[in-house]
Amino acid sequence: MPHWTALVAEKKQRQLKSIPQEWLVTPPPPSTLDVTGFPESCGLLNAREIKITNTSVDVLLKKLATAEWTAVEVTTAFSKRAIVAHQLVNCLTEIFIDRALARAAELDDYLKKTGKVVGPLHGLPISLKDQLCIKGLETTMGYVSWIGQYEEKNAVLVDILIECGAVPFVRTNVPQTLMWPETLNSIFGRTTNPYNVSLTPGGSSGGEGALIALKGSPLGVGSDIGGSIRAPSAFCGIYGLRPSYGRVPYCGARNSLEGEDSILSVFGPMSNSLRGLRIFMKAVANSKPWLKDPLAVRKKWDEDEYELADHGSGKYLCFAIMWDDGVVVPHPPIKRSLEITKAALQKAGHKVVDWKPIKHKLLEEIAGNIWNAGSAEDFMITTSSTGEPIISTMELEDAHAMTPSFRPKNDHWNATASETGTGRAVDAIICPAAPFAATPHGKFTRVFLYCNYTTVWNALDYPAAIFPVTTVDPTLDGKKPPHSFYDDFDKDIYEMYDPEKFKNAPVCLQLVGRTLEEEAVIKMTEIVDAALAAAQ
Amino acid sequence: MPHWTALVAEKKQRQLKSIPQEWLVTPPPPSTLDVTGFPESCGLLNAREIKITNTSVDVLLKKLATAEWTAVEVTTAFSKRAIVAHQLVNCLTEIFIDRALARAAELDDYLKKTGKVVGPLHGLPISLKDQLCIKGLETTMGYVSWIGQYEEKNAVLVDILIECGAVPFVRTNVPQTLMWPETLNSIFGRTTNPYNVSLTPGGSSGGEGALIALKGSPLGVGSDIGGSIRAPSAFCGIYGLRPSYGRVPYCGARNSLEGEDSILSVFGPMSNSLRGLRIFMKAVANSKPWLKDPLAVRKKWDEDEYELADHGSGKYLCFAIMWDDGVVVPHPPIKRSLEITKAALQKAGHKVVDWKPIKHKLLEEIAGNIWNAGSAEDFMITTSSTGEPIISTMELEDAHAMTPSFRPKNDHWNATASETGTGRAVDAIICPAAPFAATPHGKFTRVFLYCNYTTVWNALDYPAAIFPVTTVDPTLDGKKPPHSFYDDFDKDIYEMYDPEKFKNAPVCLQLVGRTLEEEAVIKMTEIVDAALAAAQ
Repeated sequence: MPHWTALVAEKKQRQLKSIPQEWLVTPPPPSTLDVTGFPESCGLLNAREIKITNTSVDVLLKKLATAEWTAVEVTTAFSKRAIVAHQLVNCLTEIFIDRALARAAELDDYLKKTGKVVGPLHGLPISLKDQLCIKGLETTMGYVSWIGQYEEKNAVLVDILIECGAVPFVRTNVPQTLMWPETLNSIFGRTTNPYNVSLTPGGSSGGEGALIALKGSPLGVGSDIGGSIRAPSAFCGIYGLRPSYGRVPYCGARNSLEGEDSILSVFGPMSNSLRGLRIFMKAVANSKPWLKDPLAVRKKWDEDEYELADHGSGKYLCFAIMWDDGVVVPHPPIKRSLEITKAALQKAGHKVVDWKPIKHKLLEEIAGNIWNAGSAEDFMITTSSTGEPIISTMELEDAHAMTPSFRPKNDHWNATASETGTGRAVDAIICPAAPFAATPHGKFTRVFLYCNYTTVWNALDYPAAIFPVTTVDPTLDGKKPPHSFYDDFDKDIYEMYDPEKFKNAPVCLQLVGRTLEEEAVIKMTEIVDAALAAAQ
Repeated sequence: MPHWTALVAEKKQRQLKSIPQEWLVTPPPPSTLDVTGFPESCGLLNAREIKITNTSVDVLLKKLATAEWTAVEVTTAFSKRAIVAHQLVNCLTEIFIDRALARAAELDDYLKKTGKVVGPLHGLPISLKDQLCIKGLETTMGYVSWIGQYEEKNAVLVDILIECGAVPFVRTNVPQTLMWPETLNSIFGRTTNPYNVSLTPGGSSGGEGALIALKGSPLGVGSDIGGSIRAPSAFCGIYGLRPSYGRVPYCGARNSLEGEDSILSVFGPMSNSLRGLRIFMKAVANSKPWLKDPLAVRKKWDEDEYELADHGSGKYLCFAIMWDDGVVVPHPPIKRSLEITKAALQKAGHKVVDWKPIKHKLLEEIAGNIWNAGSAEDFMITTSSTGEPIISTMELEDAHAMTPSFRPKNDHWNATASETGTGRAVDAIICPAAPFAATPHGKFTRVFLYCNYTTVWNALDYPAAIFPVTTVDPTLDGKKPPHSFYDDFDKDIYEMYDPEKFKNAPVCLQLVGRTLEEEAVIKMTEIVDAALAAAQ
C-alpha cells in the first residue's frame, strides 16, 4: 500500500488530465480578492458563451427546448466557465466533460429527430456534490481511503436527473467528513470564496457554492445535515433550498455517519436563480422518486401548495423575523439585511412580526451529542486504511457542539396565530443563515464554530431557502459597540467582526417553512425576493 | 415505596371500581373455548344494543349523523359489550365510560342544536391501545413502575380523534415492553383469544384484537413496530392496517425503545369492518396532523390514489402471492387461505403471480440486532423503580432475532414489471401474516418466536392490511407430511402444528403495498375482500 500522499498525488494528476489543456488560464494575482469578474474577462469564453452562462435556468431550458441553443453548446459554455472557476477557487473534484458532451449530443439528436425534449431538464448542465455516485467514476468525498473505488451504479437522484434530461458534467468539493462548514480535504485541498478569496465559501457544499457563484454551473445539488446547503449558498450569495427529509431521494449516494437516523442529511438544489430551485424540485418530485428509493416521500409536486392554498393564496402574508437566536447575536451586515427585508415586505403590503427564539441552545447541545456519539469512530475507521490524517479542526469531540434534535416546539409556531391578523399562524420565519457572513479561512475552529442558525431547522425537519439581500459594505456595516453578551462565546463571535475583513462578502437570509412544505417555501421566497427587488 | 405487587393490587382494585357493578356477568365455564357468542347470549345487552354493536363503522356513522341513534346509546351499547368482553378475555386496562358518556351527551346536544356533526367520526366509540395518553389518566403500558403517573395532556392522535367527534371509552391491554407477540404483563395479566381462549390473541395490540373480535368496540387504534397491529388482527379475525411511518401522528404517546429511529412504531386502525380502516385514515389525514406533530407526513387523504390512479384504476390488477418466505413454511390452514384467495382473485378477473422472497432471513437478523441493541437496558431501567420482574419470555437477548431493517430491495419489486402483463410492477403482494394461526399461550418462547412475515414490511416501511379469509378446520387442515425443512427452526414450527389445538382460530392474510400508499392498499384490500365474498 503506497503512502497516502502518493495516492493523493496520483489522483490529483488524473484530475489535471481531465481538464482540457487549452482551457488552462493564468489566474489573477493573489492580491485580487474578488475574482467574480475574471471568468468573463479572461478571454476563454466568447460572447455567446458568456451570454449562455449568465442566463437563468428557466430561460436556458426554454432556449434548449426550442433548439435555439444546443445542449452541446450550453454544456461547452458551462464546462469552460467551470474550469475557469476551478482555477480561481479550487471548487471541483471529478471532471467528466467528455461524458457530458456525449450525452448532450444525444439529447440534441433526440430533439432534432422527435421534436420533443427528453424531460423537464432537457440539456441543462448540472453540477453535483462529491457524494452523488456516477457509474464508472470514483466518489472519494475527500477521503484518500476512497480513491480507486469506482462505482457500479448511479445514485438514484443521478438516474432521475439524467432521465429528466439533465447533463451532469462536474462534481464539487467538500470538507473531509462532510461535517464541517469550511471546504477542505486531504485530496483536493481548500475551496475559497469568489467574492473574497480570503474567506471561506462555507461548507459542506462549498464547492457547489463557489462554482455557482462564478456561474460555472446553472444548477447544482448539495446536501444539508446541519446547514451544508444553506451556509455555502449564503456565503456565496446564491439561492439554495434545504428540503424536508425524503423529498429528494438519497439512495445510492455516499455519506458520513451512516446509520445516524435522528437528524438526516438531505439533498437539495443550489442555483443562481430562484426559478432553478422550483424547476429542480418539481422535476424530482414528479419523477416519482419513491418508486426508486423507498425512503423518498410519496408526494408529487403540489401546485395548490405552491399557489399557497394553505397561506391565504399569498395575498397577505405574515412573516416573523428572528433577529437573533438568543445564543449568538448576528454581525452588523446580517442585522442590516433583516432590516432591509422587513422594510421591503412591509412596503409590499405584508405583515412582519418578531419571532421569539425558543431553546436554540438546548437543541444545539442535543444535536451535537447525537453527531458526536459516533463520529470520531466513523471518521477513524474511514481514514484508517490509508493512514490519512483527520484534519484537526474536524475532530468533533469536545468541539463546541454543532447541532440539535428536538421536536414538539411546533406548539410555539401554532401559538403565533393570535398575533398575525390572518387567522393563520405565522406563514414563514425569516432569519439569518449564520450570525456572520462568509468568515476568514480557518475561523471554524473550536472557538468559532456556530452553525445553529441553520441546524436548528434540520433538527425540526423544517424546509428552508436561502436568498441574497446585500453584501458587506464597511461604510454601512461598521463595528457596533459591545452589546450585553449572552456569554463568552457570543463575545468571541462579536470580536471576530471586522468590516474590512468581511468586505464584499454576500449577505443572504433564510426563509423557513414547515415540514414537507417545499412548494410554499419556494413561493414565499419568490414573494420576498420580488419585494426586495421592488424596494431597491 | 410499597412492594410492586401491592401497587398492582391497588391498581387492579381501581380498575374493578371503574366497571359499573350491574354489568358484571357470570362467564361461561372454563371448558368453553369459543366465547364469541357469549356477549349476545349473556343477557346484559338488549336487542337494540346487540344490533348497534353488530353494525359496521360506516353505517354507525350514518345513523349517528342522522340522530337515528344517539351517541349516548351507541356509547352505552359498546361500553356494555366491552365490559362483557373484558370479563371473557381480559382485554382492558383503563376504563372511563363515565367520561365517554359525558362526551357523547355533548355531541348529541351539539347535533340537536346545530343540525351538524362535530366531525367525520361524530359519536363513534373508539378504543385505544394502552400507549395513547389521555389527560388525567395513567398510561401504564403494563409497567408497574408507571402506575400513578397521571398524564397532563392528550396524545396528538387522541386530540385529533376527539376533534373528529370520536368518543374514546376504554384502553386495551399490551405485553410488558410492547416488544412481544403475546399480550401479558404484571399489572393486568394475560389476554386470551375469543375464538379459542387457549390461544393467544397475538400482540402487542392484543387487547384491541380481542375486544374488537368480540364487537366490544367498532374501531380501535393499535401500534405496530414489527407486526403488533397485524398479528392480533390476523389472530383475532379482524381487519387492521399498518400505515407507513408518519401517516398517523405518534407525538405525545408512550412507547418502548424511545430513540430507536431505524424501525419506527406506527399507529393504525383495527376494526370489524374494512370501511373502518378507510374512515379512520381519511379522518386523520384530513385533520392535518402535521401541524400538530412535526414528524407526521404532510399528505392529505388522496382520493385519486384511493381510486388506484397509479394502478390502472384497479380494473385489472396483478397480485403476487408469497407462499412462504424462505425461512419458515406456513402451516396448512395458512396455505389453504392463500389458495382460496388466489382462486377468488382469478375468478374476479385479476392476475396472480408468485412472489419470490428475497433475503428475509438477513432482514430478520438485522432488525433483531437493532432492537436488541438497547432493549435490555430500556426494559431494566423502566422496571427498576419498583423492582417488578421482567417477564422471562420478553428478555430479548439471545432470543431468536425478532426482525429486520434493510432498504433497497425495491428493485426486486420494480423488476416484476416484466411478468405482470399490466405494464406496471406487481400492484400488491399477498402473503401470510404469520406462518401459523393464533398459537397456544406461551408458544412465543425463544424457540417459536417468529414475527418476520410482518416485520419484514416494517423494516421496508411498506403499508400492509390484514383481511380475514377462513378459520382453522381440522377436516380441511390436516397435518401434512414433513417437508424438506429449511432448518431446525422451520422444523420446530412444523411440529407445533396440531389441527385440534388450533381449531376455530381465524385465518387472515396480509396485503402489502408501497410506502405512503395507504389509500391504494385499502382499496386493493377492498377488492380482495369483495372477490373473497363473491367466490364463496
